[in-house]
Amino acid sequence: MPTYNFSAGPAVMPAAVVQQIQAELPSFQGSGMSIMEISHRSDLFDQVINDAERDLRDLMQIPDNYRVLFFQGGGTLQFTAAPLNLATGHHHIGLLNSGHWAERAAAEARRVGTQVDILGTSAANHFTALPTLDQPVTADLDYVHVTTNNTIEGTLLTQLPATGNVPLVADMSSNFLGHQYNVTDFGMIFAGAQKNLGPAGLTIVIVRDDLIGHAQDLPSMLDYQLFADKRSMFNTPPVFAIYAAGLVLKWLKAQGGLAAMATRNREKAALLYDFLDQSTLFTNPVKPSDRSTMNVPFVTGNAATDAQVIAGAADRGLLNLKGHRLVGGMRASLYNAMPKAGVQALVDYLAAFEAHHA
Amino acid sequence: MPTYNFSAGPAVMPAAVVQQIQAELPSFQGSGMSIMEISHRSDLFDQVINDAERDLRDLMQIPDNYRVLFFQGGGTLQFTAAPLNLATGHHHIGLLNSGHWAERAAAEARRVGTQVDILGTSAANHFTALPTLDQPVTADLDYVHVTTNNTIEGTLLTQLPATGNVPLVADMSSNFLGHQYNVTDFGMIFAGAQKNLGPAGLTIVIVRDDLIGHAQDLPSMLDYQLFADKRSMFNTPPVFAIYAAGLVLKWLKAQGGLAAMATRNREKAALLYDFLDQSTLFTNPVKPSDRSTMNVPFVTGNAATDAQVIAGAADRGLLNLKGHRLVGGMRASLYNAMPKAGVQALVDYLAAFEAHHA
Repeated sequence: MPTYNFSAGPAVMPAAVVQQIQAELPSFQGSGMSIMEISHRSDLFDQVINDAERDLRDLMQIPDNYRVLFFQGGGTLQFTAAPLNLATGHHHIGLLNSGHWAERAAAEARRVGTQVDILGTSAANHFTALPTLDQPVTADLDYVHVTTNNTIEGTLLTQLPATGNVPLVADMSSNFLGHQYNVTDFGMIFAGAQKNLGPAGLTIVIVRDDLIGHAQDLPSMLDYQLFADKRSMFNTPPVFAIYAAGLVLKWLKAQGGLAAMATRNREKAALLYDFLDQSTLFTNPVKPSDRSTMNVPFVTGNAATDAQVIAGAADRGLLNLKGHRLVGGMRASLYNAMPKAGVQALVDYLAAFEAHHA
Repeated sequence: MPTYNFSAGPAVMPAAVVQQIQAELPSFQGSGMSIMEISHRSDLFDQVINDAERDLRDLMQIPDNYRVLFFQGGGTLQFTAAPLNLATGHHHIGLLNSGHWAERAAAEARRVGTQVDILGTSAANHFTALPTLDQPVTADLDYVHVTTNNTIEGTLLTQLPATGNVPLVADMSSNFLGHQYNVTDFGMIFAGAQKNLGPAGLTIVIVRDDLIGHAQDLPSMLDYQLFADKRSMFNTPPVFAIYAAGLVLKWLKAQGGLAAMATRNREKAALLYDFLDQSTLFTNPVKPSDRSTMNVPFVTGNAATDAQVIAGAADRGLLNLKGHRLVGGMRASLYNAMPKAGVQALVDYLAAFEAHHA
């Protein structure tokens, strides 16, 4: 039985990449050493990290005045690092509150002494739509933080807020490389790898170089300028995770890059949303124009029925459909590596469940 | 040709562990998902992290009043986290300066506003011996920081300094699980995984529970109490690295545990030191009583000859013998996973080189 893994993260990776990692695990590039065993100061790893950066730059068309940094610690560490590095002028940022991860970002920024103004929130409708910018973006804001895809609530930001000269900082963790953005619309983008890029334990930071280097005496592991100067190797980077991410980037190029991927993702998501919208049993609560192509939450409205749906799906190899505890029900994550056949199998199963349930 | 990897880290892993990872990479525990793809909230991963903690507790005989935490960011992030969490009483610590990594620890502690007193240093003899405690350990020190093994300088701390009621905090990165210590002699132990434990991207923190929970409003990714409360899963942990480390821990138990390993490491190191001490070409500069069983630096005194040694070794599958740039020459790292046959092959090669060179 084929299995399809709908986990929100760590998540499905391209099968071809998993096979390649397996094949070359005992001896990387004929070196007699596993990729897990090679020094980050070796020529072998130099090529791995250089290729990864080059391929990411190609895929996202990252201009030369942006640095690409490889961090550990997930998006959460960047909730601390971003204000420490970028909010040095006024220690004051704006934030659009689109749900759980935006609230986490606000909390971490405040912990390091940054004033956080909520410029808009969709809390009143339980984040089933994106917030609008309700407050002016004033010049005393060092940046405005947005979450481009809300993994739990299932919303996707396609129309960026107009922030004028105030840089936009984007937590792109759950739709990085799954949707096309212009990098130049952002001062900084960051993303945990464990959705669309590879195994957990790696975080990408893409930052405009004029925005960094203004902070004094930061802890080294939070210092963007130091990471830029040391090519992300001030200390030992997560070698295996960077290697695996590099293979995913090569796979993405072979698939036709981000435009092809975004189109495929829209088609995959439409298959599921179209089913949900005509269903009399299942509901997706999100405003249609704000729906995510990556994470699709849905419910029956009855917790016992939801549990039956999830258990029956698992029996058929449709894995990890349990919704996040904050919203309940089901959630299907349809990242780049989820084939259309997986979404079709899910829709077929849900339709059969509904017919049987009726 | 067999290869032997003498890298200081990332470093050689047990061949049996690499084989097991390879074998089960496409489908972990028959789940149809790679270990790289499974959710950290799954029962599958729960067992992985619980086993890893249990096996580590067994191997090191960690008492119940110590927490075991799984971090990212290497030892360097702990240079920041340790003072933020533990130096909350007086913002004042002592440190024994045994070399490069001790100096890094001092610098990072100072960056977060901690006063660091150097209680002893062996800088005058280029850290070829361990420092002695030259200053009194006063009650206004929150803790005393030591580096139990100096990866670059090749020294090993076996006699812990007498610090009375002031807790000892040990950076054990390069001899974690390679030498036996009593955990109860320390307030805290931390170690990057990429020497004796597994792939880079994981750091272990072992901390006495009465020492944590006193800091206010720390960034979450630096908060020991939060990590303890959330079982190291406040955000997504490095799933693959924890899994790989868990396999190494099981391997260590099968090898007879830390007592057997420490004995084997002493034997392996003696093989190399005995050769170096009788050689008229090669020299290890470290005071005999302070020599590391993990990292053995040695030189010929001539940079061109050193380069010949390293190149000739690589031709024979003896890899990554280049010394650290701070000390030059050669360095052989003999971590747990380095078989005795590898050390013998190195000694045979060095002897042949010397005979030919004479």
